[in-house]
Amino acid sequence: MRDVEPILWKGGRLSLLDQRRLPQRETYLELRGARDTARAIRSMVVRGAPAIGVTAAFGLALEAARFRSGHLRDDFERAAGVLLAARPTAVNLRWALERLRETAAAVGQDAAPRTLAAALRKQALALYREDIAANRALGAAGARVLPSGDVLTHCNAGALATAGYGTALGVIRAAWSSGRRFGVYATETRPFLQGARLTAWELVRLRIPVTLITDGMVGALLATRKVAAVVVGTDRTAANGDVANKIGTYTIAVLARRHGVPFYVAAPTSSIDLDCASGDDIPIEERDADEVTHIRGRRVATEGVRVFNPAFDVTPAELVTAIITEQGVVRGGDRTGLARAVHAAQRHR
Amino acid sequence: MRDVEPILWKGGRLSLLDQRRLPQRETYLELRGARDTARAIRSMVVRGAPAIGVTAAFGLALEAARFRSGHLRDDFERAAGVLLAARPTAVNLRWALERLRETAAAVGQDAAPRTLAAALRKQALALYREDIAANRALGAAGARVLPSGDVLTHCNAGALATAGYGTALGVIRAAWSSGRRFGVYATETRPFLQGARLTAWELVRLRIPVTLITDGMVGALLATRKVAAVVVGTDRTAANGDVANKIGTYTIAVLARRHGVPFYVAAPTSSIDLDCASGDDIPIEERDADEVTHIRGRRVATEGVRVFNPAFDVTPAELVTAIITEQGVVRGGDRTGLARAVHAAQRHR
Repeated sequence: MRDVEPILWKGGRLSLLDQRRLPQRETYLELRGARDTARAIRSMVVRGAPAIGVTAAFGLALEAARFRSGHLRDDFERAAGVLLAARPTAVNLRWALERLRETAAAVGQDAAPRTLAAALRKQALALYREDIAANRALGAAGARVLPSGDVLTHCNAGALATAGYGTALGVIRAAWSSGRRFGVYATETRPFLQGARLTAWELVRLRIPVTLITDGMVGALLATRKVAAVVVGTDRTAANGDVANKIGTYTIAVLARRHGVPFYVAAPTSSIDLDCASGDDIPIEERDADEVTHIRGRRVATEGVRVFNPAFDVTPAELVTAIITEQGVVRGGDRTGLARAVHAAQRHR
Repeated sequence: MRDVEPILWKGGRLSLLDQRRLPQRETYLELRGARDTARAIRSMVVRGAPAIGVTAAFGLALEAARFRSGHLRDDFERAAGVLLAARPTAVNLRWALERLRETAAAVGQDAAPRTLAAALRKQALALYREDIAANRALGAAGARVLPSGDVLTHCNAGALATAGYGTALGVIRAAWSSGRRFGVYATETRPFLQGARLTAWELVRLRIPVTLITDGMVGALLATRKVAAVVVGTDRTAANGDVANKIGTYTIAVLARRHGVPFYVAAPTSSIDLDCASGDDIPIEERDADEVTHIRGRRVATEGVRVFNPAFDVTPAELVTAIITEQGVVRGGDRTGLARAVHAAQRHR
């Protein structure tokens, strides 16, 4: 079966698999510039830290076709600002735009707009390919440390959350591809149901056995069944190893600790933010109340209720067994190891 | 505003507020005997341990109109068996049927069927009234120990889960009625969404501020906001103080312990099972996969996924700060105190 392609870049055109409609419908939306790309990211047509980084890069490259001669820097920064504002928590958005900024600087502000646009398209495509390669390296590294037995994952850190292959699911599929056999428990991940709709869909396609649970069942699962490890992704990991990831992750980490289950975070170095000292510095997006009061467009909650809807939470480094990067596996809370991995990735570009 | 009436008993007729359709529709279903009452309990027209106990009592009393002269005991046991099999975890079902069995024994097996039916109707109505009175006493006792500040509750242990007034929500409304002001956080409680649909609805009616969260947000809530206490209900509490309650309760108890938040269980003595030594002896119902793969009748999860759907989990006594009964408050894990409360309730009937 062909791999899932959340981001299609063909003949200079960008299309996104509309993840809001999965698994019921597989439809692609074509994007034309920074503004509609930002809107697609904000409304979760595409989600997952690596995927939104790469998508933003393509969006900015498309927007560059409209940059004005002599105003390249201003136009670049305006478009980058629109994209950066789309979602605050994942650092990959900032990381990808920074990579494009370096490209723009190298091209110079006196270049012809079409020269800059061509360079940005090339760089965005490089980021896309780098992301897939990083995920494959991360998956292989993770498969080497993953204990044998069933695995629990949360939200979707699969091919759909990246340019392709996946981070947490990358570890799982690398272990599976090496011939090991096990089952995966996937939390449904309210409010957006990434687990029920996206992770389960990917694993069924890969023919890896997947069992769905609601988010509240994690405690009962760990208390009554044998789970060998938890593997999740991350939207931003701070310099001290604190991990921001989809809401519900912290809850799982606390339970994993109580039950002695190792807790792994699959973190491509693009999601590690050495400028953030700790989780306290990571901005946590709060999203619309509608996401909680409604499910798939229909109201379920009573009228008149207030809502608290943080999209992410922070798992302190002390609850993290190890962080798996494409540069190798770093023990939870090992600041030096994290910095080394980020710097190694920078040298390898 | 009139109190919510989940169970209507008027002129010898039994109607249930159909909780599957709340809060969008308030419709009542009339029941005529043991079989349709069991079906209503199984399909969650009515749910909540005290409510299903009282409902089963009325269902059996209605069925008694069909008992055959000379076969009263057989017919009673057949009907009781149908009701008892409806749901395995809540002990109130067994407790209520046992109370009716005592009534039947007192009437004797040679009585006229209509004499037995009348006695059972009277006893069922007594159980109904006892339950409301117990909840009010429990609420008052709980309000005295509840710390000031915001409260988190899970699932629905309100008027809808009982004959009226509520257990965990009984504690909350007693505290509110005494003039204290605070907010309530309610988990939505997948898969059946009792929190979003029922608890939020009751609290909005009572004009007590309620903020809805998804089940995965409990960790983030306790880590980032001030919550003074957790108060939940129970479907069965064992002799050692282990508490079976709606799936997700154990997860919350573990998080409450980590954050030093007291964890209270509102347990009318009808839900305490001294015959169960510990939580290991409490049967945990597993329900249909459809409840997880579908929401409000529509499929959300991908096809081909397996499901683990335990309806309840067990919170060990060591995580329980106190158990609030209508006979007073018992420290978590205090076996002697629990037994004393149950025996005091038996003496007071």
